[in-house]
Amino acid sequence: MENPGYRSGSFDGHHHPSDDDDDEMVDIAGATLDFSSTDDVPPLSSGGYEEYSSSSSGGGSGGAAGRMNGGGPSRLVDPLEDLVPGVGTYEDFNTIDWVREKSKDRDRHREITNKSKQSTVALLHSVSDAFSGWLLMLLVGLMSGALAGGIDIAAHWLTDMKGGVCLIGFWFNHEHCCWKSDKTTFQERDRCPQWKTWAELITGTSEGAFAYIVNYMMYIFWALLFALLAVTLVRAFAPYACGSGIPEIKTILSGFIIRGYLGKWTLIIKTITLVLAVSSGLSLGKEGPLVHVACCCANILCHLFTKYRKNEAKRREVLSAAAAVGVSVAFGAPIGGVLFSLEEVSYYFPLKTLWRSFFAALVAAFTLRSINPFGNSRLVLFYVEFHAPWHLIELAPFILLGIFGGLWGALFIRANITWCKLRKTTRLGRYPVLEVLVVAAVTAVVAFPNSYTRMSGAELISELFNDCSPLDSSQLCGYQQLSNTSSIGNSLADRPAGPGLYTALWQLSLALIFKMLITVVTFGMKVPSGLFIPSMAVGAIAGRLLGVGMEQLAYYNHDWFIFKGWCSPGADCITPGLYAMVGAAACLGGVTRMTVSLVVIMFELTGGLEYIVPLMAATMTSKWVADAFGREGIYEAHIRLNGYPFLEAKEEFDHSSLAADVMRPRRADPALAVLTQEGMTVGEVESLVENTLYSGFPVVVSQESQRLVGFILRRDLLLSIDTARKRQEGVVSSSLVVFTEHTPPQADDAPPLLRLRGIMDLSPFTVTDHTPMDITVDIFRKLGLRQCLVTHNGRLLGIITKKDILKHMAQISNRDPDSILFN
Amino acid sequence: MENPGYRSGSFDGHHHPSDDDDDEMVDIAGATLDFSSTDDVPPLSSGGYEEYSSSSSGGGSGGAAGRMNGGGPSRLVDPLEDLVPGVGTYEDFNTIDWVREKSKDRDRHREITNKSKQSTVALLHSVSDAFSGWLLMLLVGLMSGALAGGIDIAAHWLTDMKGGVCLIGFWFNHEHCCWKSDKTTFQERDRCPQWKTWAELITGTSEGAFAYIVNYMMYIFWALLFALLAVTLVRAFAPYACGSGIPEIKTILSGFIIRGYLGKWTLIIKTITLVLAVSSGLSLGKEGPLVHVACCCANILCHLFTKYRKNEAKRREVLSAAAAVGVSVAFGAPIGGVLFSLEEVSYYFPLKTLWRSFFAALVAAFTLRSINPFGNSRLVLFYVEFHAPWHLIELAPFILLGIFGGLWGALFIRANITWCKLRKTTRLGRYPVLEVLVVAAVTAVVAFPNSYTRMSGAELISELFNDCSPLDSSQLCGYQQLSNTSSIGNSLADRPAGPGLYTALWQLSLALIFKMLITVVTFGMKVPSGLFIPSMAVGAIAGRLLGVGMEQLAYYNHDWFIFKGWCSPGADCITPGLYAMVGAAACLGGVTRMTVSLVVIMFELTGGLEYIVPLMAATMTSKWVADAFGREGIYEAHIRLNGYPFLEAKEEFDHSSLAADVMRPRRADPALAVLTQEGMTVGEVESLVENTLYSGFPVVVSQESQRLVGFILRRDLLLSIDTARKRQEGVVSSSLVVFTEHTPPQADDAPPLLRLRGIMDLSPFTVTDHTPMDITVDIFRKLGLRQCLVTHNGRLLGIITKKDILKHMAQISNRDPDSILFN
Repeated sequence: MENPGYRSGSFDGHHHPSDDDDDEMVDIAGATLDFSSTDDVPPLSSGGYEEYSSSSSGGGSGGAAGRMNGGGPSRLVDPLEDLVPGVGTYEDFNTIDWVREKSKDRDRHREITNKSKQSTVALLHSVSDAFSGWLLMLLVGLMSGALAGGIDIAAHWLTDMKGGVCLIGFWFNHEHCCWKSDKTTFQERDRCPQWKTWAELITGTSEGAFAYIVNYMMYIFWALLFALLAVTLVRAFAPYACGSGIPEIKTILSGFIIRGYLGKWTLIIKTITLVLAVSSGLSLGKEGPLVHVACCCANILCHLFTKYRKNEAKRREVLSAAAAVGVSVAFGAPIGGVLFSLEEVSYYFPLKTLWRSFFAALVAAFTLRSINPFGNSRLVLFYVEFHAPWHLIELAPFILLGIFGGLWGALFIRANITWCKLRKTTRLGRYPVLEVLVVAAVTAVVAFPNSYTRMSGAELISELFNDCSPLDSSQLCGYQQLSNTSSIGNSLADRPAGPGLYTALWQLSLALIFKMLITVVTFGMKVPSGLFIPSMAVGAIAGRLLGVGMEQLAYYNHDWFIFKGWCSPGADCITPGLYAMVGAAACLGGVTRMTVSLVVIMFELTGGLEYIVPLMAATMTSKWVADAFGREGIYEAHIRLNGYPFLEAKEEFDHSSLAADVMRPRRADPALAVLTQEGMTVGEVESLVENTLYSGFPVVVSQESQRLVGFILRRDLLLSIDTARKRQEGVVSSSLVVFTEHTPPQADDAPPLLRLRGIMDLSPFTVTDHTPMDITVDIFRKLGLRQCLVTHNGRLLGIITKKDILKHMAQISNRDPDSILFN
Repeated sequence: MENPGYRSGSFDGHHHPSDDDDDEMVDIAGATLDFSSTDDVPPLSSGGYEEYSSSSSGGGSGGAAGRMNGGGPSRLVDPLEDLVPGVGTYEDFNTIDWVREKSKDRDRHREITNKSKQSTVALLHSVSDAFSGWLLMLLVGLMSGALAGGIDIAAHWLTDMKGGVCLIGFWFNHEHCCWKSDKTTFQERDRCPQWKTWAELITGTSEGAFAYIVNYMMYIFWALLFALLAVTLVRAFAPYACGSGIPEIKTILSGFIIRGYLGKWTLIIKTITLVLAVSSGLSLGKEGPLVHVACCCANILCHLFTKYRKNEAKRREVLSAAAAVGVSVAFGAPIGGVLFSLEEVSYYFPLKTLWRSFFAALVAAFTLRSINPFGNSRLVLFYVEFHAPWHLIELAPFILLGIFGGLWGALFIRANITWCKLRKTTRLGRYPVLEVLVVAAVTAVVAFPNSYTRMSGAELISELFNDCSPLDSSQLCGYQQLSNTSSIGNSLADRPAGPGLYTALWQLSLALIFKMLITVVTFGMKVPSGLFIPSMAVGAIAGRLLGVGMEQLAYYNHDWFIFKGWCSPGADCITPGLYAMVGAAACLGGVTRMTVSLVVIMFELTGGLEYIVPLMAATMTSKWVADAFGREGIYEAHIRLNGYPFLEAKEEFDHSSLAADVMRPRRADPALAVLTQEGMTVGEVESLVENTLYSGFPVVVSQESQRLVGFILRRDLLLSIDTARKRQEGVVSSSLVVFTEHTPPQADDAPPLLRLRGIMDLSPFTVTDHTPMDITVDIFRKLGLRQCLVTHNGRLLGIITKKDILKHMAQISNRDPDSILFN
């Protein structure tokens, strides 16, 4: 028996053969444009459709059978396609109904399984359907890995372009250029003759003030050029390509529709502009945008498989996996990526998705490795190897770093949101190109003189994480050489800081302040911009400073009782690189409020279980401190800023209101607009729909009893009436609309009935008016509902939508309930 | 306003001051004993309770306030305690109501938060309440880690005891005994003079047939002694201590109550008998039981915190974390443990639990490491380091291993379940002690002559995983020395097998067959027994055999095109240890159907991301192959065997039935037993309850309208009437029972009313009769429901309980619906 509650066919959207739902471009300003009425739905007069009545006359059970026997026209290849075009699809900026989508997929699956017993072809179809998920994951992994590799290589090349050019081929980056040279020794590889700085090319010399100024100017020129290109491309071709994309992806995964956000244009433009934005030297990372890129890949590849193209819930499973893929390629951390998707991004994450995400994340990581963009055949972005273990007493500075990270996170979120609000409400927002150019110019001007800000964020972090080996020539390892002491055997022992290190510390302190300030204004501009790398950079600098401080403290005070026993002279007791790593984790944790996934990502970078405890202590402290100032991470804050309807799964609803307090209509409002199951005419229904703005209407037995029969969506109702008026003979305004199974007796000369039971949801969710809101919110979250009806002693009383809940929650926490924009 | 839907107080169970719900011992035979009427509930006549009426007179809203103002007697320390003892608690072998429990906890939390604004003490209480979860996790981690360390040490010692004894102190194990000796060199450590085999002690010589026989006899003697002790202790003190415990823990976590299963007696006896069972040489592991031990620890520690003692849902969050802790200490794999809990065991796993589990798992792992039971300060059970990478072509044998693992898994489950059914239905089950002794004797007799079966499972696996280094003296590394070839530079190069290796291969083949057979009869006996190690051993042997085979094939056929290019003579191309590891993962995957967690556990053992791909290929193949023969893993199979009410979250409900098809009453049955909200007398209610067996009754407006008001549980109803009859003046059989808010008009001389609105659930879950069962099952799973009412057009039609769903599912898959025993 078909499932009459959610009659599969009735909800299956009709898709135009070449439909590409998510590829339409839409500016955020045009938020409520109804695409369905323009593009999605093929012209109603195109003919070739079965009479509408044949699909609904089946009543309770025969819907699908009726359709199949009815001799569908040639265009209906898929028997699950429905006859009323558009019914069961969603409008842009609307929330999907998870239960309906999942039920649709189960019906689809059941149909395929049942058919597979009939013929070999159908059996093959069933097998290919079962494995299409895995194939899709493979493709997503391959495509994302390849794109990430390409982005890495291109960004590396363009970043080096700011400093100079390779003479044997301008398409080589600095490192690659010097590889080609056989003459240079290992030491001199950085100064190989094939690579010319701009000063060398223009003035002929690389020394002197003039050369410095030429290099400075060229640096600024390229930075501005890249930034201009990036922002222009975003503005012109894909407004959705800006930002990190994670807030929107979270919202989409929770069941929202934003057409074009994951489309092919967004993918192309985001990929290109990400390279440009990173290369321009702005204080941003590519990790968040890589998640967006991976999700775009997944969404585009979904179009290859009917199973995923047609079902919003199934597609979101794939997108969850794609988020894991994004982090996996960003950090070379597949397990961390999966946990990131689980903890931070996903809304609905069944176990099947866990396993598939893991597969896709691994494929992507290995694809990236075979492309080998870092040139060292390593999987990870920052490869760290520490020599010394840590001591229990060091937990104190680690927790201190956690506090710093938490404070910075809370402060950053507040400052960034204030700035973004300014951008939204003042004239600032009207000149996005100028804004990007100004910020890029400031960044370039300030960054060039300081070597720690001039290098890219990833390079900086890598250097800060690095443990000083004796031969290390970096400034950060500028310790005094003590060849005459007893520590000769242990070349890694703590040593006093030399002048090089002091210079480095000064530069780092300045870099810290600069990074902290510039990141606030950078995140949220109209270029692709991730937060991971800048946050980590801030934390890594702070951590390294503290680490070196601790090291020197220990060196000069071996006899203090806190150092006694584990840090004797000549021993290698404190690793400043570890402090940098802990600091990076703390700051990233403070900003994003990630926990497990962050620790696992960091663990995958180092590979040693030993360092998990410091990381965990810092991350936990950071989260607690930051939560004390505000429960929201940066992504949730941006979701709220944009007014997306996102029901946070982490936060408990802690207020003691009841369903009756939240439902509409309120006490003073007019009664709920309902349809009766029989007795209303087409005209009455139409005028009711026209006079209200509700997106759905309950159907009751009669106005007096208010006993609930079902629920019908506005969109489905309008489409069906429209179709019927055009195609069903004799349906006029005075035709009766019936939602019952049986046909009511009617006069002979009455116009034909319009039977709409087929598009009615016969199993609407209900709660009683006494249901506490915490339970109601739980039901909405867990089942992914769009709306829920409220009854009292079996009578229909009102309705609660997701928007009502969000408004209620905003009211409770003294926010403006009208900031929730969408339904 | 209090939450009248689930009036918190009304559901809070009253607990006897010394109550210890989960510590009562109960034999499975006495399954349906009602403990609540004997131990849980203090004597009703003990006095000191407020009049019942004062609690229910508050009607819709004033319940809690009324109680607090009523001047509670001294015994009611906690204001949330209720006045009707037992209301809101559960009987043994019953399912909890997740929604109700979570709502209770939110009420509790809200009360504490509200109070915290009033005084400093209350604020401190609120803070300590917030951190009690973390403290509890810390304690669980410490206790489980310590216990696991103790078990490891004791098992090691007793296992060695079967071979001999240490002269300088019988409490030293073999390794420890020889550490004490200074005289022995590294090579001779195994033959140190302080350690005497039994033959040396008894006959004075360690050579010759007689010595061998003495050792053989002593081995059998000890094995039988340990087995006898184990089974006797289990029988006498804690019948729940047998088996692996994971099926029951899965069931408990899904919301079932099994009193005493996680109690202190079970913990003590399981810990002791686990050591004995492992030492007796039976083909079982300690990994599964360690999960049970960790859960017992968690459950006992829960009693220290009101928050967790009183709330079944909160306690299950802790138990989920404890399952992670168990695997973390079993394998030294904290991340794998968390994923195991998430993937395999847990039912309700919120993000908060993820983070806390991770913390507890880490604490436990580090506690275990500081105890250092393996004597090598390593965290992991099997430390593996491979030298050679794997080649893409090797995926073929890896997939072959996956197929083997899947076949073995499917076969094992079928054989084991058949055997367990035999044990249940035939005379076999009546002599559990004899059964254990016979199996132990057979195991010992067969195992002793073969060195690979004589060693413990963990040692065997460790040896099989090991990569042969040139100096390795193990038989498995008995390759021919080719000192005159060109491979001198690469001492790890592939070499031809020598006679030692051939012997080893024969012994391994015999060990494989023996292990496969004996494990089937061992798992399910009345001793603690885990499956991880035996399954892994089977897979590791098979893998090693295949690995050596591949190695020799490659050695003798370097010119075959499949080996060309990557496996030239003198190269180290094939690592048999890796094959063993892949095989172990495949077999464990086939038996348990674990996926991500298994791969991550294995990854944590090796630490190299590189080997994830082979592991993943094998695990995936294994799962697919095994699933083709039956969808259930061994744990689900045992859950079903025992008839526990477990609603599998992984399997999709794929049938197209409707709620109307599943609900009771069926068409032929008498009408649903309902209470009306007014008009029934106490006597009528009592007779209705007595004449039916339902565990709850819907309350309707009137028999005619059948409009639903609420739902009341049988247990709560009986307890309340009982209490009222004893304490409330004048309540007799002719008293009216009312569930309404207002008081109905009544004659002056009528007996006083019994108002029961307070214990009624005002927000029962309802679905319509047209709701497809797939959606209904989804709702049950996601919300953790016990029952759900079915309505049609606003009228109450029937009820669906979890048991009904399980029976329906059994019917669909042609199983006996009466195998579902509990509700």
